[in-house]
Amino acid sequence: MPDDSFHVFDTTLRDGAQREGINLTVADKLAIAKLLDEFGVAFIEGGWPGANPKDTEFFQRAAAELDLRHARLSAFGSTRRAGVRAEEDPQVLALRDSGAPVVTLVAKSDIRHVERALRTTGEENLAMVADTVAFLRGSGRRVFLDCEHFFDGYRHDPAYALSVVRAAAEAGADVVVLCDTNGGMLPADITRVVTEVREATGARLGIHAQDDSGCAVANTLAAVDAGATHVQCTANGYGERVGNANLFSVVAALELKQGRDVLPEGCLSQMTRVSQAIAEIVNIAPSTHQPYVGVSAFAHKAGLHASAIKVDPDLYQHLDPVLVGNDMRMLVSDMAGRASIELKAKELGLDLSGDRELAGRVVERVKSMELAGYSFEAADASLELLLREELGRPVRYFDTESWRVIAERRAVGRADESAVSEATVKLHVKGERVIATGEGNGPVNALDRALRSAMEGVYTALGGLELTDYKVRILEGASGTAAVTRILVTFSDGRGEWTTVGVGENVIEASWIALEQAVTYGLLRQGYPQD
Amino acid sequence: MPDDSFHVFDTTLRDGAQREGINLTVADKLAIAKLLDEFGVAFIEGGWPGANPKDTEFFQRAAAELDLRHARLSAFGSTRRAGVRAEEDPQVLALRDSGAPVVTLVAKSDIRHVERALRTTGEENLAMVADTVAFLRGSGRRVFLDCEHFFDGYRHDPAYALSVVRAAAEAGADVVVLCDTNGGMLPADITRVVTEVREATGARLGIHAQDDSGCAVANTLAAVDAGATHVQCTANGYGERVGNANLFSVVAALELKQGRDVLPEGCLSQMTRVSQAIAEIVNIAPSTHQPYVGVSAFAHKAGLHASAIKVDPDLYQHLDPVLVGNDMRMLVSDMAGRASIELKAKELGLDLSGDRELAGRVVERVKSMELAGYSFEAADASLELLLREELGRPVRYFDTESWRVIAERRAVGRADESAVSEATVKLHVKGERVIATGEGNGPVNALDRALRSAMEGVYTALGGLELTDYKVRILEGASGTAAVTRILVTFSDGRGEWTTVGVGENVIEASWIALEQAVTYGLLRQGYPQD
Repeated sequence: MPDDSFHVFDTTLRDGAQREGINLTVADKLAIAKLLDEFGVAFIEGGWPGANPKDTEFFQRAAAELDLRHARLSAFGSTRRAGVRAEEDPQVLALRDSGAPVVTLVAKSDIRHVERALRTTGEENLAMVADTVAFLRGSGRRVFLDCEHFFDGYRHDPAYALSVVRAAAEAGADVVVLCDTNGGMLPADITRVVTEVREATGARLGIHAQDDSGCAVANTLAAVDAGATHVQCTANGYGERVGNANLFSVVAALELKQGRDVLPEGCLSQMTRVSQAIAEIVNIAPSTHQPYVGVSAFAHKAGLHASAIKVDPDLYQHLDPVLVGNDMRMLVSDMAGRASIELKAKELGLDLSGDRELAGRVVERVKSMELAGYSFEAADASLELLLREELGRPVRYFDTESWRVIAERRAVGRADESAVSEATVKLHVKGERVIATGEGNGPVNALDRALRSAMEGVYTALGGLELTDYKVRILEGASGTAAVTRILVTFSDGRGEWTTVGVGENVIEASWIALEQAVTYGLLRQGYPQD
Repeated sequence: MPDDSFHVFDTTLRDGAQREGINLTVADKLAIAKLLDEFGVAFIEGGWPGANPKDTEFFQRAAAELDLRHARLSAFGSTRRAGVRAEEDPQVLALRDSGAPVVTLVAKSDIRHVERALRTTGEENLAMVADTVAFLRGSGRRVFLDCEHFFDGYRHDPAYALSVVRAAAEAGADVVVLCDTNGGMLPADITRVVTEVREATGARLGIHAQDDSGCAVANTLAAVDAGATHVQCTANGYGERVGNANLFSVVAALELKQGRDVLPEGCLSQMTRVSQAIAEIVNIAPSTHQPYVGVSAFAHKAGLHASAIKVDPDLYQHLDPVLVGNDMRMLVSDMAGRASIELKAKELGLDLSGDRELAGRVVERVKSMELAGYSFEAADASLELLLREELGRPVRYFDTESWRVIAERRAVGRADESAVSEATVKLHVKGERVIATGEGNGPVNALDRALRSAMEGVYTALGGLELTDYKVRILEGASGTAAVTRILVTFSDGRGEWTTVGVGENVIEASWIALEQAVTYGLLRQGYPQD
């Protein structure tokens, strides 16, 4: 178990969320935080409370709902405004009141940004740093300080950049993080500058590297070589522009190539699972060619040295993929599948590794479903229902006889012209045949309403369930509308969220499968006895 | 113009083609070679003549068809077999006879690979290297030698690895290339080893880095820092497993961050165009987040410091994107919008730049539609229809009165149990009211068929149109099924393809909008007069 002497600091939820195309709900952020904690990072930067209501809500719900084993939450914010006392700056007070034990402050360290963007003086900027750090330390918070544009600023005016580092350290910042905000640095320069700054200030240093030169991972390692003991990264390298240093590549290099214990025991092998689950949540297809965790990362051309590889795998791969929860290609889905299945089983209080026959059967079924387009990385509720079924305890609150959706655009000019949808479902609930109809702005919305109204009389808690997220992915765009559609739906009952997956040639059928499971799992959470 | 003292050596056509999913025709390889030459690389490794008939044909056709301005072709091959004279080894003779002025030989430099994979002795391997190099030099070829698995071999048995370098250099190899074949190295170790090898052997050294640690670019630069004067890279980092050192990132760092002239005058700014063109040829979507050349590489969040960025762009980007043929995204969005609109207008024989009022109006409309969720980047057919409308010449072959889709899963157990969809459309075609119905495996499929059957009698060419691609994108996953849906559909008429876009709260309505436009554009292509 790593002590405080080295920090793996994740900023996926703050800086990573800056990536174009990523738009996280609070539920997404909670789910990602849970995964990052399972991976064993020491700090999770959750966002900017006060500046962003979604982030304020995240910190409130995280305190109530997240049971973090390894990670502490950090709130991100800025030093006080120029000419205002820290204790009177609402933005600073929001950081204090976020409930996060750690606050990471961003400050200008390039005099040109101070004067042209902040439009204040170098002295006032130093005071802003010192006052804000001191105020938050006085409020019992641990404080890290990000020096924005540090390396560019140091090149332009090293003396001023150093004065910002000193001001932060003297005011009580535990770590001063040197940021390559524009991402243009190369490793050799990082090593030189970090060494100079450490010798000049004696401060504890961290590194935050953007990937604009394609060297963010190497730059992060170069800073560590030069004495930095705090690395800021994002899952899968998500981030603004090109992205940030990839958490998984950095941690794997530190642990497996430099022999540093930067993660708690047993967490490293969660890498591939966590990477893929986060990709599903942000709804960006996992990169097949990502180092360590990509499906192709340990793929070997069939045939080529095949026999030699089997005899001497270590001669053909830079490390044993099992160490990062991956495996040589042919075995990938096998292993990843088994790992997450045994994990899920453990949550249900069952040790699958005991029953190899059962485990094997479940893995086989999961594999064949994944071949058909299913993905359980993010749909843990579907996986749990599947597992309970394989265990001979299927969860069933209703049976579907049939469903029908009518979607139409009414005649132009009619008073009620608009695209409306109407769904009718025929179910069997507690032995009774129920027919119900629902209207909605879309076919899935209508099906959802019909399904609830069919059962609300019997299962009153259904009223408290809400469909909070709906994701569509066409799996083979090339075959037109006949392509397979994968639907992920997320429901909430106010106490938590769960996600289910449905697959079909037909967007509505796939949605129905996911809806059926989401409602079933919701009723299970409510503790309803089955009929 | 760079002299021979530094080599940019591209192996996209040989090592890059090893990437899963890439399968190049000879025509593809010729087109890529032309692009690489336009980018100004010094050497293009074209493949393994003799071992692969496609590669043999490539070298024949390249000699006849390619007029290379900057690059020389290199044939890739292996040292002679054990126990055979080089001049009697058909594989070696094929290299000599390929017509390529340069031959790059791969040799084992890790004694374990010599003994376990090659199944010969260390001495024989050294003789294989010396004989093959000497024979090809004697045949007037320039020879580079790739030391496969060099860094792993050097760690295991430095003396033997060094003996291979010496054997190659003494036999006349111009460059001995140290290969991190398994891709597991980190920059600091690369610098150390390359320095030691250079001092121990005095040979001219090159570097070939795989990206399994996510450090291939940094490893390549580290080798150059240590005295390597020959870098082997691939376009966009294509390659086996995770990939190879990215040609564009390596060259940009050498030219723009280290001030080395490694490309001919004027070639660097071709980077973005060449990168994207090659991605199109290999049929892998260009990475939006690739350093230097990605669409997002210089994207700045709208609003954030927007004004400051306009005043001082250099404070917010690591270099001027124009240097690599890219542009600041914030400007792209606006300008690309106007640019593509004026381009499209020109195709219609109208110079929009003449009518600023009209151009402005079109741009405004496009921007407001993009705000509503539309995206015209890929949907050029929709953009053309919109433009024709703004020009007062709307394209209209039919009017939609209404449509209705019924999607259902029939009762379980019924003979015809399955999810089927049926669509009915009411249209006005050439003044006549038409009602038609279509069945499909999904609602969109059914609508497509209903729409065609309603008009096929009048527009017989409709039978030749095919829906070839269908993409769904939920734009705000957070608002569940009420989120806005964007649909892109692509149609083909055998002679070409076109894409249209539809947006709506409802996946079916959005699909209908895109279908209406796709069919309208298809009829326009057929030259049908409008009613």
